[in-house]
Amino acid sequence: MQLEKIVRRALEEDLGRGDITSEAIVSRDIRGSGSFLCKSNGIVAGMAYARTAFHLLDSDVQLEPFVNDGGAVTKGSVIGRVYGNARSILSAERVALNFLQRLSGIATATASAVKAVEPFGTRIVDTRKTTPGLRLVEKYAVRVGGGSNHRMGLDDAVLIKDNHIEIAGGIKRAVRLARENVGHLVKIEVETETLEQVQEAIESGADVIMLDNMTCDCMKEAVNLVSGRVLVEASGGLTPDVVADVAAAGVDVISLGWITHSAQPLDISLELHTVK
Amino acid sequence: MQLEKIVRRALEEDLGRGDITSEAIVSRDIRGSGSFLCKSNGIVAGMAYARTAFHLLDSDVQLEPFVNDGGAVTKGSVIGRVYGNARSILSAERVALNFLQRLSGIATATASAVKAVEPFGTRIVDTRKTTPGLRLVEKYAVRVGGGSNHRMGLDDAVLIKDNHIEIAGGIKRAVRLARENVGHLVKIEVETETLEQVQEAIESGADVIMLDNMTCDCMKEAVNLVSGRVLVEASGGLTPDVVADVAAAGVDVISLGWITHSAQPLDISLELHTVK
Amino acid sequence: MQLEKIVRRALEEDLGRGDITSEAIVSRDIRGSGSFLCKSNGIVAGMAYARTAFHLLDSDVQLEPFVNDGGAVTKGSVIGRVYGNARSILSAERVALNFLQRLSGIATATASAVKAVEPFGTRIVDTRKTTPGLRLVEKYAVRVGGGSNHRMGLDDAVLIKDNHIEIAGGIKRAVRLARENVGHLVKIEVETETLEQVQEAIESGADVIMLDNMTCDCMKEAVNLVSGRVLVEASGGLTPDVVADVAAAGVDVISLGWITHSAQPLDISLELHTVK
Amino acid sequence: MQLEKIVRRALEEDLGRGDITSEAIVSRDIRGSGSFLCKSNGIVAGMAYARTAFHLLDSDVQLEPFVNDGGAVTKGSVIGRVYGNARSILSAERVALNFLQRLSGIATATASAVKAVEPFGTRIVDTRKTTPGLRLVEKYAVRVGGGSNHRMGLDDAVLIKDNHIEIAGGIKRAVRLARENVGHLVKIEVETETLEQVQEAIESGADVIMLDNMTCDCMKEAVNLVSGRVLVEASGGLTPDVVADVAAAGVDVISLGWITHSAQPLDISLELHTVK
Amino acid sequence: MQLEKIVRRALEEDLGRGDITSEAIVSRDIRGSGSFLCKSNGIVAGMAYARTAFHLLDSDVQLEPFVNDGGAVTKGSVIGRVYGNARSILSAERVALNFLQRLSGIATATASAVKAVEPFGTRIVDTRKTTPGLRLVEKYAVRVGGGSNHRMGLDDAVLIKDNHIEIAGGIKRAVRLARENVGHLVKIEVETETLEQVQEAIESGADVIMLDNMTCDCMKEAVNLVSGRVLVEASGGLTPDVVADVAAAGVDVISLGWITHSAQPLDISLELHTVK
Amino acid sequence: MQLEKIVRRALEEDLGRGDITSEAIVSRDIRGSGSFLCKSNGIVAGMAYARTAFHLLDSDVQLEPFVNDGGAVTKGSVIGRVYGNARSILSAERVALNFLQRLSGIATATASAVKAVEPFGTRIVDTRKTTPGLRLVEKYAVRVGGGSNHRMGLDDAVLIKDNHIEIAGGIKRAVRLARENVGHLVKIEVETETLEQVQEAIESGADVIMLDNMTCDCMKEAVNLVSGRVLVEASGGLTPDVVADVAAAGVDVISLGWITHSAQPLDISLELHTVK
Repeated sequence: MQLEKIVRRALEEDLGRGDITSEAIVSRDIRGSGSFLCKSNGIVAGMAYARTAFHLLDSDVQLEPFVNDGGAVTKGSVIGRVYGNARSILSAERVALNFLQRLSGIATATASAVKAVEPFGTRIVDTRKTTPGLRLVEKYAVRVGGGSNHRMGLDDAVLIKDNHIEIAGGIKRAVRLARENVGHLVKIEVETETLEQVQEAIESGADVIMLDNMTCDCMKEAVNLVSGRVLVEASGGLTPDVVADVAAAGVDVISLGWITHSAQPLDISLELHTVK
Repeated sequence: MQLEKIVRRALEEDLGRGDITSEAIVSRDIRGSGSFLCKSNGIVAGMAYARTAFHLLDSDVQLEPFVNDGGAVTKGSVIGRVYGNARSILSAERVALNFLQRLSGIATATASAVKAVEPFGTRIVDTRKTTPGLRLVEKYAVRVGGGSNHRMGLDDAVLIKDNHIEIAGGIKRAVRLARENVGHLVKIEVETETLEQVQEAIESGADVIMLDNMTCDCMKEAVNLVSGRVLVEASGGLTPDVVADVAAAGVDVISLGWITHSAQPLDISLELHTVK
Repeated sequence: MQLEKIVRRALEEDLGRGDITSEAIVSRDIRGSGSFLCKSNGIVAGMAYARTAFHLLDSDVQLEPFVNDGGAVTKGSVIGRVYGNARSILSAERVALNFLQRLSGIATATASAVKAVEPFGTRIVDTRKTTPGLRLVEKYAVRVGGGSNHRMGLDDAVLIKDNHIEIAGGIKRAVRLARENVGHLVKIEVETETLEQVQEAIESGADVIMLDNMTCDCMKEAVNLVSGRVLVEASGGLTPDVVADVAAAGVDVISLGWITHSAQPLDISLELHTVK
Repeated sequence: MQLEKIVRRALEEDLGRGDITSEAIVSRDIRGSGSFLCKSNGIVAGMAYARTAFHLLDSDVQLEPFVNDGGAVTKGSVIGRVYGNARSILSAERVALNFLQRLSGIATATASAVKAVEPFGTRIVDTRKTTPGLRLVEKYAVRVGGGSNHRMGLDDAVLIKDNHIEIAGGIKRAVRLARENVGHLVKIEVETETLEQVQEAIESGADVIMLDNMTCDCMKEAVNLVSGRVLVEASGGLTPDVVADVAAAGVDVISLGWITHSAQPLDISLELHTVK
Repeated sequence: MQLEKIVRRALEEDLGRGDITSEAIVSRDIRGSGSFLCKSNGIVAGMAYARTAFHLLDSDVQLEPFVNDGGAVTKGSVIGRVYGNARSILSAERVALNFLQRLSGIATATASAVKAVEPFGTRIVDTRKTTPGLRLVEKYAVRVGGGSNHRMGLDDAVLIKDNHIEIAGGIKRAVRLARENVGHLVKIEVETETLEQVQEAIESGADVIMLDNMTCDCMKEAVNLVSGRVLVEASGGLTPDVVADVAAAGVDVISLGWITHSAQPLDISLELHTVK
Repeated sequence: MQLEKIVRRALEEDLGRGDITSEAIVSRDIRGSGSFLCKSNGIVAGMAYARTAFHLLDSDVQLEPFVNDGGAVTKGSVIGRVYGNARSILSAERVALNFLQRLSGIATATASAVKAVEPFGTRIVDTRKTTPGLRLVEKYAVRVGGGSNHRMGLDDAVLIKDNHIEIAGGIKRAVRLARENVGHLVKIEVETETLEQVQEAIESGADVIMLDNMTCDCMKEAVNLVSGRVLVEASGGLTPDVVADVAAAGVDVISLGWITHSAQPLDISLELHTVK
């Protein structure tokens, strides 16, 4: 139900009071058929969003994907085909492509980071640095790319940051307050910046320890300190270039804001042919 | 009213059922004060979005901007200050930053393209390749960066593309159909790919002619053909690197999808201090 | 999607917590068949709205129009037929008729004005004096009646009125400010009340000049001054009675608030027969 | 809460993506003051709607009414004054006037009918023939004009029409079914077309009897038959011209669709002066 | 349309960002079939709500009821069967049951009160003490259980309570004010606490008289006073235990907040079997 | 923001088209003052909901609580006072009380269960058996009563039930699938019905083990098996009567659907006095 709501909003935004060009020029009885052409290598994500864009506007338009979400494509591949009323296809085209390009871009960036850390068995996860209004969509694209999701919002896990620690008067008190106040099915993660904090976090009973902005050497020491008792996550302005080094430090999880806020869209176009 | 609706949606998305960390750890009477720190050079955009994020959550939180939208900032500058209830600031922080970083990124990219074409008096405009649900926001950031807006949606101007021309059976018939069917306050633009099409578009009485994916030499010839009778727009996968060359070809307007779909966010963080 | 939203709102308004009369009296298995009977001459508009009213309530009810939107009907004609579950037809009847009568009334009034100016080739357009919440619907009915649309809202064209001119310090400065601040696909119209203002508007580079509340003689002089360089629109409390005279003055466009705010509804009723 | 929702919807409809004219030309610091000038005689209704239109856009704009809803005004009177930010006033002006003119038109038409039947003590009531989406608003205007409301929707009273009677197999069975199926606080009205039906309706125990499309003579006989036992309502395409004659026939209530679907708007304009 | 809106809201509330358990474990091609098992005696209500819960999530899931709303069931009966995609069934199960159990609980409690007063021909009605957001749903369950509805809200009948009487300065003035200000299709009920008030209410011309918190003896006297001229309703913290005694006092209607705010849910579970 | 949305929906539901009684009888200038009187012992919850009900209708109405949420009250206590415009108080009264009574009822039932298990240090938690549309509200009341929350929805933790186990082909495979597919901040709970399943769940690496419908003896053995390695939760149709025995079996957490679906509302009334 969320998917439909998000696509509908995008259609309403683009159509406004209607596609005046197509309504003026394209008569109602013309049909068309279009190919989604991929212009660079990548991972496809968002086929259901593209289909929904056409479908909400005109339930007779069909979108047949040639590649499922998660499939790897190369430059020049045709990844799907749409056919039906030409006016409807033209009116929904841009919205369909906007979703498909953005989601495929995120999946592609994620897959590249996932591949880089594969030898280490490290998980690549996203952050809350997503586009306002599109979090569920972008976090879906991360999963399509082989990544995994960090918190979906402020409500599904506890993440104790520097300000929380300062306010609580230390990591142990912060974790204790959290444990008392949240349900027994909620995990607690603590952000640490020094090895002393890592040690305190271990003793506090946190479920996950985040190493924020540490050097790889420092992370190695932290991993040794923890020695498998709880999960360790590396974080802090990381980019795909450095993930292999970070993974080599032995962390379990690497979180990357980059894959949602800075991934380039995958270049995809729709080549349409009409039939009178 | 749009601004508030978009920010509210982003807050609801992030908060879900509530900020369980801050509710558990930060008592209600703690106040805080935070500085927005800019970590690279750029143009600021989105201050009102950041303010609204805090304000919707807690009308007592104040955001005092030190730079207005459109102001240039350098790495290390503090661009504003927020103060009020600490729990409220922590809960709205990420949403405020997500808007501020993305919008400032778009404004910065736009400003850089605008500067590159300044000697030629060319306008930089955006496209409909915006993030689903954020078009008004992103098009605002383009204006902040000194750019101007192409169509806001499918409804506020006519843009006759290759498929419309094919269906209508030629540019002239397409323009005539459009002119008959839309109001007298609507402009008509025609997309052309060859000089023959440019010639036909001139004769059709279109208000604006788009040169799509042409070489700079070809664009120069097109500009000569038009010789000032109507506006000429260059389009087609252009990037900031090439805009100066394109502008030199004499076009009036250059449209860049790049500034909305590929601009990097400006790196901004919130440094918070709490007072019990 | 807009159509469905507007009809749904009207149904919710009328049904409230349900049609208690039909639920109490009409058993679920009774079917009915009804004829839409037109009780005066006019132009039909709104068939899709009527169909949607029935359809949203009960997707099995069918509406078969005998006349398409824009068709002329005479007193006593049956313009369509609805059949399906009797309770559903009874519950949606009033909403369907409210749309059909109002839209047909607007189309009829528009068509009469259009016919009056036909010899002069003048366009009849509407205004923003529409019923709150029904603008798209009423502007659609104007097009059905052969008219054309002025601005859809405050956002799709610039209309510089007396207050804007006063604030800007003259027509030329107002047009220049507008040109700088809006996109290259937006037209600019200027409202004028004297021939001096018409002259200034011509020189300002406006795309359209509105003659507000001028006498026919004054309009003729204005048309001469403009001499075809830009479009000329007559405006200001005009009624169908005077449009022929105004058109004879040579203007290109006549705008009539009357056709949306004062047109009488077309008298249409639904004659229903039930079958057990 | 309904009022605000309806005005907000109208503002969103008119503003779309923003008032591009005023944003381009009117700088933010200019203030204005405007008078609502009434150009014909009538009854004012809708001041709160006008105020809300300005207030939703800019809570600093003040509207000071000189006449309350229900007050009689004459041509040339100033009925209120608005002052505040000039851009805000210009952007909300049309929506405020659209409500004020339409509601005052309905109140004026209602008051005229009410006056015509005053000697007979008859009630003037509205119908469900209201503008889709504006029923509450228009029914409010009827009360302002001295009228009273018929059903607000299909849910707040039972009205048994010809089709219900036919389906039930007679008035008595229809009333019995309704009485059994609705709560003890719901009134039941029966539509009748002949004196035989009136007699049957009296015996059925209905609370109100509607005389549909009867001649005045026939209505007199019906009133005699009923002789005060239940309320009697005259209905069926009535216009203000005939209400006095109908009232003279002795009915208790006269329902008029005309006052909502055919009343002319009251001519009101806003004369604005700006102060830099 | 209301039903779908209410069920959709409940699904969105329960699903949040998705059923992560079933998405992780249940592959898309597994189908299931489940029986709704009733674990105590009662009256079934809410089958359409349960069906809609499954249907909104996945239009291919079928729910076949073995008992219609209003049917009596005994402990151990299977009241319906659902089959289709296993993941969809699991994801909607809780919402479907939450509606079915609550509504059946209300219908069961109502039916028991209805049965207790059957010898006296008294009506059992509900109150406005319903769960916020579920009034229409709960009032429907009351009707399913054989009860009838009191006011649906503050808008569909007049109920004059002690505070209204005090403010008006007496019952007669309160009723007169109400009669003047509401439409001719609205009933007026007056709450009384003494026989003097009952007498005044009779004289005021009220349509219904409520006896609030009276003893059975007092109610008998009140019923005698009224002697059939208007309806008499007993009210005030009544429970199913006492309704027979109250009915014996001769009142026409007994209102019970208990049946909506204190009825226990009917114990129903879904026994699911999956087929790969 | 959620609170306001939920209260607004309840107000709209109750007010419908307006409080016709109070509008007819209570003139606008009358003020009132009311006391919330508690008629039985309990724990108060929902003061902010009651305040919001009044405040949304009329921002000038003040509610002054004498007891904060969570405070214990005895029969006869006045727990707060409301004052302001009498019409507004009367119109919002029922909605305010509906929230206050229901939430206080849940808090009271929870507190009683919490007290019963206090000697054992066991946590009382709720379930997803909440009223459709009121989950957040009811789960808040549980926390007020000293309980803690189980899952808020299907999205914030994994709960592997019998059907999931059957589909996966065993607990271990189900847990492994879940672990692979959900983020590293999500806990996994497994429902078990036998000691064999408990053993398998321990080995599977689940975070929490639910003992479903076990006898107290069986639960003791299960607790021994687990011996503190993971959390143990008792579940399955439990009522407040039995929680002490269950707690004595040594489980960490007891979940009770009863406290949300079967708690009686706390009896609270509003005693209003008006001042002209």
